[in-house]
Amino acid sequence: GLLIYSMVTDDKPERLDGPSMAEKDALTKRESGITDQSPMRLRMEEFIKQHQKQIVAELEKIDGKPFHIDTWDRPQGGGGISCVLQEGNVFEKAGVNTSVVYGRLPRPAILKMRADHKALDPDVDSLPFFAAGLSLVLHPSNPMAPTVHLNYRYFETADEAGNTNAWWYGGGSDLTPSYLFDEDAIHFHNTIKTACDKHDKSYYPRFKKWCDEYFSNKHRGESRGIGGIFFDDLDNTEKDQEQLFAFVQDCLSAFLPSYIPIIKRRKDMPFTKKEKQWQQIRRGRYVEFNLVHDRGTAFGLNTPGSRVESILMSLPLTARWQYMHSPEKGSREERLVDVLKNPREWV
Amino acid sequence: GLLIYSMVTDDKPERLDGPSMAEKDALTKRESGITDQSPMRLRMEEFIKQHQKQIVAELEKIDGKPFHIDTWDRPQGGGGISCVLQEGNVFEKAGVNTSVVYGRLPRPAILKMRADHKALDPDVDSLPFFAAGLSLVLHPSNPMAPTVHLNYRYFETADEAGNTNAWWYGGGSDLTPSYLFDEDAIHFHNTIKTACDKHDKSYYPRFKKWCDEYFSNKHRGESRGIGGIFFDDLDNTEKDQEQLFAFVQDCLSAFLPSYIPIIKRRKDMPFTKKEKQWQQIRRGRYVEFNLVHDRGTAFGLNTPGSRVESILMSLPLTARWQYMHSPEKGSREERLVDVLKNPREWV
Repeated sequence: GLLIYSMVTDDKPERLDGPSMAEKDALTKRESGITDQSPMRLRMEEFIKQHQKQIVAELEKIDGKPFHIDTWDRPQGGGGISCVLQEGNVFEKAGVNTSVVYGRLPRPAILKMRADHKALDPDVDSLPFFAAGLSLVLHPSNPMAPTVHLNYRYFETADEAGNTNAWWYGGGSDLTPSYLFDEDAIHFHNTIKTACDKHDKSYYPRFKKWCDEYFSNKHRGESRGIGGIFFDDLDNTEKDQEQLFAFVQDCLSAFLPSYIPIIKRRKDMPFTKKEKQWQQIRRGRYVEFNLVHDRGTAFGLNTPGSRVESILMSLPLTARWQYMHSPEKGSREERLVDVLKNPREWV
Repeated sequence: GLLIYSMVTDDKPERLDGPSMAEKDALTKRESGITDQSPMRLRMEEFIKQHQKQIVAELEKIDGKPFHIDTWDRPQGGGGISCVLQEGNVFEKAGVNTSVVYGRLPRPAILKMRADHKALDPDVDSLPFFAAGLSLVLHPSNPMAPTVHLNYRYFETADEAGNTNAWWYGGGSDLTPSYLFDEDAIHFHNTIKTACDKHDKSYYPRFKKWCDEYFSNKHRGESRGIGGIFFDDLDNTEKDQEQLFAFVQDCLSAFLPSYIPIIKRRKDMPFTKKEKQWQQIRRGRYVEFNLVHDRGTAFGLNTPGSRVESILMSLPLTARWQYMHSPEKGSREERLVDVLKNPREWV
């Protein structure tokens, strides 16, 4: 989900045969502001930054502790805002990041992406690209309250003159409980499904399945959590740009309604030491997925120059690996594992 | 270091054109016992099992809590013994594993291994192979006491008639402190160097460097720990089999003398809550290396049918990821990180 941080593998200055995408966009912003007529790059950037503020404000209300905010600029244009809350009253660790990248995509990445985006020129060494996304991961302290992850991103490549070539959207949101409350799972999936259904009745079933397949700890034969939606490479072969942007906007806008009622219900529930320990074991599985299987994380960590602290913001504050731990027969812990081994339909 | 668990990617029954390596070895054991004239497979197996017992006994004396022992057999021959101690008095988690595998090596693995072992036939779909190794990882509770890792292994391939084709040794041992005591680092390296020097004066410097290069969290530009030795693919282009076996025996025999004095000195030292927390952060880095960079672990987890609990035995019981944690100027924590960023010569 954090792919956008890692795509910057070739940061040579752009060629001097005209203003770069970054320069054009900076000029547009200064001269005309951002309207519905602006390039999608600027509209997406504005949209994710607005939502980052709104989400952070809402989470601060719930936690009572303010987020720590880091911003950074990229020399080639763009930058990021990391909002992190650690050891809060409700959240053990919560990160809400936006990132805007103007960079160059190296040839091996172009060739990989061509599988899904035929418009990419296979005969160049590198291409200008743009990526903007919002990523968040919230790990609550209370073991009855589920971890949640969300990422929505927009990606664009351009020719040397700065004209858009290929573009696509990706993202999703998924829930990872340590203790399963059916009403939470149903509410989370229902809220997302409602957002999807407004745009295409096929989206929720397709993207729910994609999510179950992607967020899987294959080495254990179990899902990371109880899913949600996941999609990637949605471009003009799917729908037009305005339609997809509207879809992504609705998905992101559905986040607070999908999660806030759940965290409110669970954050103050009583729990035992043993239940806290089970949560820690489940956090270990979260780490396993993110470090072993998540394409964005692994690729990012292997990419020189990426911002490691932003990539690994997704890891929980604490985790546990207990040899041969296995839940008691008939316990709530066992029931969770059963559902993780056999993903369910929730709506 | 846990590669041997993961090599078994093709467990079809062996062909029926003669007794398999496993059958031959079982017969030899029954009829003649194991002597200096036995195949290296049996001598290595006996050697690592003896040492596993001795190491476990010594660690139990120090901890006061017994190890939990799991054994398992592999249907094609061979098996494993996992000795694990969790939440002991001295060790938060300690695992000492032996594993003996008779299996078949699939073609992609053969082609990779040919880079170092020209005797491998590139024109077959799979080859019988044998692997035996001992792996251990000890994570003490006290943050002043370092984590230690060791792995020694012997690998062999055969033709369909069960005649040895290629063979090699690999392994090493390395130390990962949260707080650096120079005397510990010097003692650890010195003990290993003495074992190496008996066999070849070039071994310690070569394998010390290899260790620094291998156990590196490249994404953070820092080593996992303060090193030791690491080597792989030592075959008859290096020395003859008896000489290399003697070398590996001396390395493994050097383990207790290299580590026991250190754990005795550190296990009861006073420490603060803040120091415990720093250890937890360092444990997080240990997890990062093992899940992101360690070839054996990653390959194992991506291989169907491997014993996940044995592979992940190397992970600490508890770990921590704290956003943007950075040690105070001039602190002991900062000094450790400096050394991890610039590996030192200790002897």
